[in-house]
Amino acid sequence: MRGPSATELGQNLRKGKADPVELAEEVFARIDASGDKAIFTETLKPRALAEAKASRKRLKAGSPASLLDGVPIGWKDLFDLKDRVTTAGSVVLKSNAPAKADAALVAAAKGAGLVSVGCLNMTEFAYSGIGLNPHYGTPRNPNGTGPARAPGGSSSASGVVVAAGILPLSIGTDTGGSIRIPAAFNGVVGYKSSTGHYPMDGVFPLSRTLDTLGPFAHSVADCVLADAVLRGLTKPKIKAAPAKGLELLVPETVVFDDCEDAVLNNFEASIARVKKAGVKVRRIKLPVLQDVLDLAARRGHILGAEALAVHWDRVHGPDAERMDARVVKRILMAEKMTAVDLVHVLQERKRMIAAADALVGDALLAFPTTPHVAMPVAPLEADHDVFFRNNAKTLRNTTIGNFLDWCGVSIPNGTDADAMPTGFLLSAPHGRDAAILSAALTLETLIRG
Amino acid sequence: MRGPSATELGQNLRKGKADPVELAEEVFARIDASGDKAIFTETLKPRALAEAKASRKRLKAGSPASLLDGVPIGWKDLFDLKDRVTTAGSVVLKSNAPAKADAALVAAAKGAGLVSVGCLNMTEFAYSGIGLNPHYGTPRNPNGTGPARAPGGSSSASGVVVAAGILPLSIGTDTGGSIRIPAAFNGVVGYKSSTGHYPMDGVFPLSRTLDTLGPFAHSVADCVLADAVLRGLTKPKIKAAPAKGLELLVPETVVFDDCEDAVLNNFEASIARVKKAGVKVRRIKLPVLQDVLDLAARRGHILGAEALAVHWDRVHGPDAERMDARVVKRILMAEKMTAVDLVHVLQERKRMIAAADALVGDALLAFPTTPHVAMPVAPLEADHDVFFRNNAKTLRNTTIGNFLDWCGVSIPNGTDADAMPTGFLLSAPHGRDAAILSAALTLETLIRG
Repeated sequence: MRGPSATELGQNLRKGKADPVELAEEVFARIDASGDKAIFTETLKPRALAEAKASRKRLKAGSPASLLDGVPIGWKDLFDLKDRVTTAGSVVLKSNAPAKADAALVAAAKGAGLVSVGCLNMTEFAYSGIGLNPHYGTPRNPNGTGPARAPGGSSSASGVVVAAGILPLSIGTDTGGSIRIPAAFNGVVGYKSSTGHYPMDGVFPLSRTLDTLGPFAHSVADCVLADAVLRGLTKPKIKAAPAKGLELLVPETVVFDDCEDAVLNNFEASIARVKKAGVKVRRIKLPVLQDVLDLAARRGHILGAEALAVHWDRVHGPDAERMDARVVKRILMAEKMTAVDLVHVLQERKRMIAAADALVGDALLAFPTTPHVAMPVAPLEADHDVFFRNNAKTLRNTTIGNFLDWCGVSIPNGTDADAMPTGFLLSAPHGRDAAILSAALTLETLIRG
Repeated sequence: MRGPSATELGQNLRKGKADPVELAEEVFARIDASGDKAIFTETLKPRALAEAKASRKRLKAGSPASLLDGVPIGWKDLFDLKDRVTTAGSVVLKSNAPAKADAALVAAAKGAGLVSVGCLNMTEFAYSGIGLNPHYGTPRNPNGTGPARAPGGSSSASGVVVAAGILPLSIGTDTGGSIRIPAAFNGVVGYKSSTGHYPMDGVFPLSRTLDTLGPFAHSVADCVLADAVLRGLTKPKIKAAPAKGLELLVPETVVFDDCEDAVLNNFEASIARVKKAGVKVRRIKLPVLQDVLDLAARRGHILGAEALAVHWDRVHGPDAERMDARVVKRILMAEKMTAVDLVHVLQERKRMIAAADALVGDALLAFPTTPHVAMPVAPLEADHDVFFRNNAKTLRNTTIGNFLDWCGVSIPNGTDADAMPTGFLLSAPHGRDAAILSAALTLETLIRG
């Protein structure tokens, strides 16, 4: 299932052991061979081949644009790609004008020589954590032995495409867990950057305050390399931190409630290995995590209010009938939220972020990305109540991080009896992206086991 | 009417030509002699005399705490003063516990040797621009030849106390114009700092996003000195800028609409003097000023939503009957504002600030502080509709600056036929406090004429 890493591919390309045009052709062959038409909303063969040919030229001339020149990449379908209509996983945007320019990060990737092969399926308008899509189909989670499992969302296919070995690298967005959840569900690494770490220009918004983006890859090293290349660095500045200087805080509030046994067992096994390597591990209460959820229950979400602002006309007009009813329902839930509610949420958020940051200090947080592995798709599709109940639980742990303005890395740390992956989430206060990636480099093999 | 400047008083105190205890006693005598019981909500004689005695000791020892050691100062009654119940111009807070500590800026003033003589009347909860107060009386504007005029608000008595020559220095707050308006109405200088310039700890909030504070004084030089001293500097770093390097932008949108003749004539006379001194003056459209007002009309105000959040229980409970009905009505106006409205306002605000900042660049904005001089009090008190209509107009020009996150200095620039002062407002984008004060030092005499 798992293909070569982005780092290896980049090396092979620079050494002449691989050719970007052949690599791109292989990707399209794998897409066809996968038989899953729900992974890409659209492939971009002409663009990919043109970019691959330009890359071939640079590589042959010995002047690669970056360490990832020629490496294929896919984009969650809310990034603008020039001359194409961005769908955001919906059919209602199809009459929009094509994008006049690449999204800022797509342009950065192009500048670094990455080959954009296509647009990846997602939850409609990025608004759920499970990854169902009634318009373009639900991409199948490539893990597990039984019935089709949910891919996780909202960057569903961004997780699947890497896990299935079709692409070594994809880019998703995360507003409530939409990178970390599909990374955990599919058994790949997902890095959710801090707000403001990457430019969001040309990315279809869900919630401008909380929207972030980041890569999916086979390893932390690939994420670190992609991060460097996408930010225009010639090589990563981030190195593995010495294990003995690291401290993990394991919060005892909420994030372990109702966790599946495999999730708990795999987490504790990771922690045991990490401790053995000399990392300091401290269990703390951190009641602010419950405060975050209580506040949302009492006053509503920033995400809800901002998503309703984005989609107001859509959910109050004829478009609503062409949208996923579950997405419309979630968007409309913010209608009862008043300006005063939002004032309280924004002010409490500042207070909670300050309180959490003070407690966390220079440590990193460690807890399971999701309380459960990816669940079978059929019952979720059959019953909206089952969907909403599961969706809330799937999003619970990650959404706390978005509210508290954390960055995070989800690392696969084993599977359950049905070979479904579990995820180990590292989190850190806003802006500590270099620290979390550096720690993740050190901890990855220990966490994975 | 006008007493010595804060700068002069500070010098006299250090030279031994004045004594802080005598100065404080003189202030209390002037308060009694003024016959206006509506200026102070409470005088603090024991505190003032204790501080004055401590100051006398330092001055006699030749080690003043600052350039304003021993100078008397008054505080708008929403700053906490230790062991006293802050009223915020209301009677409903009277059962609150006394403040456990001085507000941060009061503590800074105490540390700099200023002598806090008492708490200054204000619009209830700082929520109107005219300055009426049914609980503590409306302080009388000391200007003019006819019937009692409005003091301006919400820092009503902070303006009056300086104009009446009772104190050389007072501190107010400004969320929609509450320093600049009473400065203009009373014919003194008022400096509204950028958000974040001073600590707001211990200041009763109106709107945490927009609340700012600043001094009232006889001159720009006094404001510059007070600013330095309150921020712990041994002397001001800000010097007068060369006139030839300054550029004033005079916007043609909204801010001159329905201005009284005296306001227009005095403004143009100031501009003519300023131009003659070599300052560049450019008239520009700046339609974003109208956009600010249109957005508020369409979606509501940040100020409204945040004030309702602060006062929700009060205006929905028995306290409402003990409050100024005009204030209750204004607070409740935000009830119809939804979270989506506030999302739009916050996002549009960012866009408008960026647009305005780009147009303003390194220049300063110049327009009248208010479109009219202070109006007679009686008709405003008699009819709520007259009050609301006038209040909206009084606040119009200044509130644009709060929304666009500007700092500002209002400088008196003449009077009308009834000897009522007009105000000339300098504004600049957020954070340009040093630039605006430096320009105001240069322009003050030209503006005043």
